[in-house]
Amino acid sequence: MTLALLDLPNGPVELARATAADLDALVALIADDAIARSRGDSADAGLGAAYADAFAAIDRDRAQLLVVGRAGEQVVATMQLSFIPGLSRQGATRLQIEAVRVADSQRGSGLGSAMIRWALDEGRRRGAALAQLTSDSARPEAHTFYERLGFAATHVGFKQQL
Amino acid sequence: MTLALLDLPNGPVELARATAADLDALVALIADDAIARSRGDSADAGLGAAYADAFAAIDRDRAQLLVVGRAGEQVVATMQLSFIPGLSRQGATRLQIEAVRVADSQRGSGLGSAMIRWALDEGRRRGAALAQLTSDSARPEAHTFYERLGFAATHVGFKQQL
Repeated sequence: MTLALLDLPNGPVELARATAADLDALVALIADDAIARSRGDSADAGLGAAYADAFAAIDRDRAQLLVVGRAGEQVVATMQLSFIPGLSRQGATRLQIEAVRVADSQRGSGLGSAMIRWALDEGRRRGAALAQLTSDSARPEAHTFYERLGFAATHVGFKQQL
Repeated sequence: MTLALLDLPNGPVELARATAADLDALVALIADDAIARSRGDSADAGLGAAYADAFAAIDRDRAQLLVVGRAGEQVVATMQLSFIPGLSRQGATRLQIEAVRVADSQRGSGLGSAMIRWALDEGRRRGAALAQLTSDSARPEAHTFYERLGFAATHVGFKQQL
């Protein structure tokens, strides 16, 4: 299902709801990143069942939207949107953005910015009052990117393996 | 539905799945906080419909668990757990913890720590491989609290009003 067609200097990129046929390309894109690999991300074929289960769980949850960006037949970007209801901030629904990746071949093309701007618009369309994400402290260039897109670095992000 | 009975020095606290009957007390507890009020949180009766809608959205979403802590009849704590499936970190489900509050009357009683430890255990029981939360940069005492509970401040948390 096409979500948007982004008109970019390097050519058009289609944003679509990811399907099971995109899974291998998405896993490869997520693992093609030194920080992600340091946390265990891997396109190792031995993890296929774990990724298939995770994809199925995302796909059946109406609060999740796994987005794939395609330039022609090639997967060049991804992000996951989660819509989280809550009592805080006057009962605001939050749009949470996770697992944002843009292929090296598309860096500097404006695809990342266009994709996040589309996500914020989609959040508004679905009635979210707040958008949030965390970015690894080791990614200062990502922090500048998100600040240019209107985000403020107001919080500290804590993680713990279970 | 009782989730746990915490045996604390100040007396027992029951953790339970919140019901609509808890809503006014939960809203008051969330708004009883200067930082939250600066973001618009309020127990103003005019917001009743917004909070009722938000409670209903949380309650019908199986990925959400709104927890209330009760000492006898009194609501003394709350937190919201969200279970988020994802492809990152080898297809890990994330336990996200939001809107953690402990009543002033219970500060220093160990309730906050016991509640978060219970949340981490519940995350493990439901198969989550990662726990995450963000804490306002203006809450240094909360950061120490979460680090003592095993969290690492590895990320920057970005927010944007929509």
